[in-house]
Amino acid sequence: MASPATPSCGTTKKVNTYELKYILNQFLATKPSLIDEAVKMAGETPKHATEDLYDALESGDYPEWTVYVQIMTPEEAKEYKFDPFDITKVWYHGNYPLIPLGKMVINRAPENFFAEGEQAAFAPSNFVPGIGPSPDRLLQGRLFSYEDTQRHRLGPNHHQIPVNRAKNAKIANYQRDGPMTMDDNGGSGPNYYPNTMNGPEPDISFNPPVVEVQAIIDRHTRPTEDVDFVQAGELYRRVLDDEAKTNLVSNIADHLFDAKENIQYRQASLFYKCDVEYGTRGAESIGLDVTRVKELVSMTQEERVEAKKS
Amino acid sequence: MASPATPSCGTTKKVNTYELKYILNQFLATKPSLIDEAVKMAGETPKHATEDLYDALESGDYPEWTVYVQIMTPEEAKEYKFDPFDITKVWYHGNYPLIPLGKMVINRAPENFFAEGEQAAFAPSNFVPGIGPSPDRLLQGRLFSYEDTQRHRLGPNHHQIPVNRAKNAKIANYQRDGPMTMDDNGGSGPNYYPNTMNGPEPDISFNPPVVEVQAIIDRHTRPTEDVDFVQAGELYRRVLDDEAKTNLVSNIADHLFDAKENIQYRQASLFYKCDVEYGTRGAESIGLDVTRVKELVSMTQEERVEAKKS
Amino acid sequence: MASPATPSCGTTKKVNTYELKYILNQFLATKPSLIDEAVKMAGETPKHATEDLYDALESGDYPEWTVYVQIMTPEEAKEYKFDPFDITKVWYHGNYPLIPLGKMVINRAPENFFAEGEQAAFAPSNFVPGIGPSPDRLLQGRLFSYEDTQRHRLGPNHHQIPVNRAKNAKIANYQRDGPMTMDDNGGSGPNYYPNTMNGPEPDISFNPPVVEVQAIIDRHTRPTEDVDFVQAGELYRRVLDDEAKTNLVSNIADHLFDAKENIQYRQASLFYKCDVEYGTRGAESIGLDVTRVKELVSMTQEERVEAKKS
Amino acid sequence: MASPATPSCGTTKKVNTYELKYILNQFLATKPSLIDEAVKMAGETPKHATEDLYDALESGDYPEWTVYVQIMTPEEAKEYKFDPFDITKVWYHGNYPLIPLGKMVINRAPENFFAEGEQAAFAPSNFVPGIGPSPDRLLQGRLFSYEDTQRHRLGPNHHQIPVNRAKNAKIANYQRDGPMTMDDNGGSGPNYYPNTMNGPEPDISFNPPVVEVQAIIDRHTRPTEDVDFVQAGELYRRVLDDEAKTNLVSNIADHLFDAKENIQYRQASLFYKCDVEYGTRGAESIGLDVTRVKELVSMTQEERVEAKKS
Repeated sequence: MASPATPSCGTTKKVNTYELKYILNQFLATKPSLIDEAVKMAGETPKHATEDLYDALESGDYPEWTVYVQIMTPEEAKEYKFDPFDITKVWYHGNYPLIPLGKMVINRAPENFFAEGEQAAFAPSNFVPGIGPSPDRLLQGRLFSYEDTQRHRLGPNHHQIPVNRAKNAKIANYQRDGPMTMDDNGGSGPNYYPNTMNGPEPDISFNPPVVEVQAIIDRHTRPTEDVDFVQAGELYRRVLDDEAKTNLVSNIADHLFDAKENIQYRQASLFYKCDVEYGTRGAESIGLDVTRVKELVSMTQEERVEAKKS
Repeated sequence: MASPATPSCGTTKKVNTYELKYILNQFLATKPSLIDEAVKMAGETPKHATEDLYDALESGDYPEWTVYVQIMTPEEAKEYKFDPFDITKVWYHGNYPLIPLGKMVINRAPENFFAEGEQAAFAPSNFVPGIGPSPDRLLQGRLFSYEDTQRHRLGPNHHQIPVNRAKNAKIANYQRDGPMTMDDNGGSGPNYYPNTMNGPEPDISFNPPVVEVQAIIDRHTRPTEDVDFVQAGELYRRVLDDEAKTNLVSNIADHLFDAKENIQYRQASLFYKCDVEYGTRGAESIGLDVTRVKELVSMTQEERVEAKKS
Repeated sequence: MASPATPSCGTTKKVNTYELKYILNQFLATKPSLIDEAVKMAGETPKHATEDLYDALESGDYPEWTVYVQIMTPEEAKEYKFDPFDITKVWYHGNYPLIPLGKMVINRAPENFFAEGEQAAFAPSNFVPGIGPSPDRLLQGRLFSYEDTQRHRLGPNHHQIPVNRAKNAKIANYQRDGPMTMDDNGGSGPNYYPNTMNGPEPDISFNPPVVEVQAIIDRHTRPTEDVDFVQAGELYRRVLDDEAKTNLVSNIADHLFDAKENIQYRQASLFYKCDVEYGTRGAESIGLDVTRVKELVSMTQEERVEAKKS
Repeated sequence: MASPATPSCGTTKKVNTYELKYILNQFLATKPSLIDEAVKMAGETPKHATEDLYDALESGDYPEWTVYVQIMTPEEAKEYKFDPFDITKVWYHGNYPLIPLGKMVINRAPENFFAEGEQAAFAPSNFVPGIGPSPDRLLQGRLFSYEDTQRHRLGPNHHQIPVNRAKNAKIANYQRDGPMTMDDNGGSGPNYYPNTMNGPEPDISFNPPVVEVQAIIDRHTRPTEDVDFVQAGELYRRVLDDEAKTNLVSNIADHLFDAKENIQYRQASLFYKCDVEYGTRGAESIGLDVTRVKELVSMTQEERVEAKKS
């Protein structure tokens, strides 16, 4: 590849993505060889990640994940330094240490991809006794919507499919009918509850924990607060090393490069709110005026949107 | 009920159906008590037939049907006095005697109505070796459409539902995927044929008999021929006794009474083509002019339609 | 019909429903002629109600309903003598008078039953500005489930079907794709919000009223309280005249007659809790021992269930 | 890339596809630079073909195809040198010259991809008057199956979707009901034919041409005949130039390289049957023994399968 010229950002609409990456990373001092390698790998073997997984399984080098929990009492939740049920934030490990639960290990590929893979239905509303949902609003929506998409995707009887079915538990409930019921569908038992025919009873030991709620039910957009930027800044400052920082900025620049200028400024100001160096490098990498970025940083989200409407 | 007046057919639009039946049957000398009984039964217990079936099953009085076949060779089929593959006609028992095959007995109600009843899928394309489809065009359409509606109604894996599943046969084919596959979906075997991985082979002993065809493929309406009326007339003349004849005419009159006059004449002429007495009684029962009916009888179907367009 | 013998309740399993009605109503002094008439009407013309509607429409005698609202402030709702959001209770008209809104008139039958009838989708979540949902828990469930069944029954684009579509309003939202989208599906506009491409904005004047909630989120059965029986008793005592009372008891008896004895006792005690005369007549009409009914009345629901388990 | 070693075919299971291409093409003297370019393009811009199309449309450089027909009479079809309804064969242009009909031009991208693209339903059973289906068995199956998949994919009313709907013709038929009917669904007209209510009549000028058929209806596999290899050989000998021949062999070798040896031999013998040079180069490119390939060439398909079962 010929050495590309200095980029004149925002004007050259049809710059090739690959050339751009090259330019940006030269500018940012990332190793071009890594990019060449990634491009070649993607061109030769688009399914390289799948191959890697199958090779690992074949050689017994099983991928595994350790599962941890953090535990906070309802009382502590009320007083924590930020909304602990905001999915975008991490509970500080210093306050709430990681407690290991066990490991998830992939030790084989599906024998039949459709039966065991396509038909699998994981839902966050499936709990074992002792665990219940938190008031995290993303989870609350998913408690319903995962199961609902599965009813649509697989059908209301997807719990009977072997890959989703309890292996040993005797299922006893009042669910009836629907496409492709494969068991006795409740036989001659009643399909209503309560009843006087010894139908199944709920096991209250499976009830999720009680949650107290005191709230105003209203439609509104969630306000953007300064606390929302703290952990993103800490990720940059405290978690990433120099190479990772450069790669992060480079990847962001790569995607943001083709965006409209007003969007570039708004987005750069958000990175700047997270961390001054992070925002400055991001802005400079795509040729923005950092002084103008700083002006946006001190505004509210609404003011920023208004200031950079076009 | 007060004694109803003589009917003035075709003018009184809002005659009550019940009154009409009463009138017609008086006229035709059917026993009014039967009608009263039928009306009361329908009013008191609309599900009387279902009750009757369940009562019969409970008392061990199982409904049963004897199944017979008639056998004609392909050579005979070419020479028979009418198209033997016309579903509206009966092969004369004198030519082709009924050969008993066995009995179908209902000896229990479903334990679960949905699982065993709603989900049942009967299709005329399911053959045991030695039996194959005839060229009957109604059957030919159904060979495809029954299975197709079941794919729509129950899903492509409806063969896996217990009520439809073979009890002892090992299923081995290349059907894969689709909603709610409950078995191993072919495991790691190939999903194409032929293959070199010992996939299942067709058993040619199940091939249906070969059929010779020599035809013009064209779109046309089926012509109405005199032979189409012969067996309907024989039903009236030779199978029904006097009471059944009267009931038949009465039931036809009851339904035809409210039709438009041109339809009444066209329909009456078809009954007349079947049998003079049958057509005459049908026409008189709803007050038609039999002379005009007779004029229609001698026409072709197209001429009749034209003559009685409105 | 021959005069039926005195009923020996609970022993004669196969008593004919019609005979039973006859017996019960003799006992209760209801006019047998009404029953005869109803049976005959159902037997002769099972679709008598449909015929009645079509006849009325044809003659210009349009069925109509006056629509009223009752208005209670959130503050009053907190203090009302019972939970005003319990759908089974009526707000006393003395406290909250009926305010007429308008009339709903049926002035024609659908031209095409499927297009305009089967495809109609009414959902309680469709509001005009100024009206919002109350915290009535039945309504809250329906806000979601009606729309959801319509997505299943008709498809996610059912709002585009003429009978469901706004006649004059310009629809502008971010709903996209799904089976049978018939409009431009948002054209080249964005399918996310917020955006900088002048996509549609929510009209906050349509926001439903804000609701304050202070609650414990838990799984529990709703307790049965004495207040639940008050209005049912008032219906019997204050709304129904003597003939209506008799018909009510007769109809209840007719259905309860075939139930198991423990269910009969439990149910009779509930009527008795509503009103002593009501419960006494109901119990006597099916031959129960009123003294035993009274014993159940003083129990809690749980005790009653336990006492009459079988 | 380091210069790769000579391949030892069939033993190195984990040879990288890219290296293999390199090896094979070195062997076959294809220009490696083309391969490098293809790999880079796929890695940098996997959607390069889509981009190319959109760029062409934007610049007014519209892709276009000229549509031709060849016309053969039914009498000629009976006598032609091969089955003219075998989709895998080309009618020789010398016998049946190409008659230009017009051009298909893509002059814009869809405004909305889902509405105009995903919902499009093309079916070979949609004819204009004067054109009808040939007895080509692939077409005969598709006459039914395309429309059927569209009924499943889009719904039975997919003809009403704007992208599929006739622009100016008045639709008049007896199709009724089904999910998402958006028109008047036939209004108050009859849904059966024939009828006396002036319902739509078929236009027999649209009837497809009559086809004579004289056949044995049987289940059998289609025999492989020598004539099946003639045109594939001509493609290699007469249509492809030297570079195209090399690329074809190289691409085949690339895919066949990883197959099991018995499959490689069977497949190579088929290429050899088409053309000796073609088969020889294909066999040599993946290291097969050409003498053994030749032995297979003289066998029937069944013998070849048997000889190379594993």
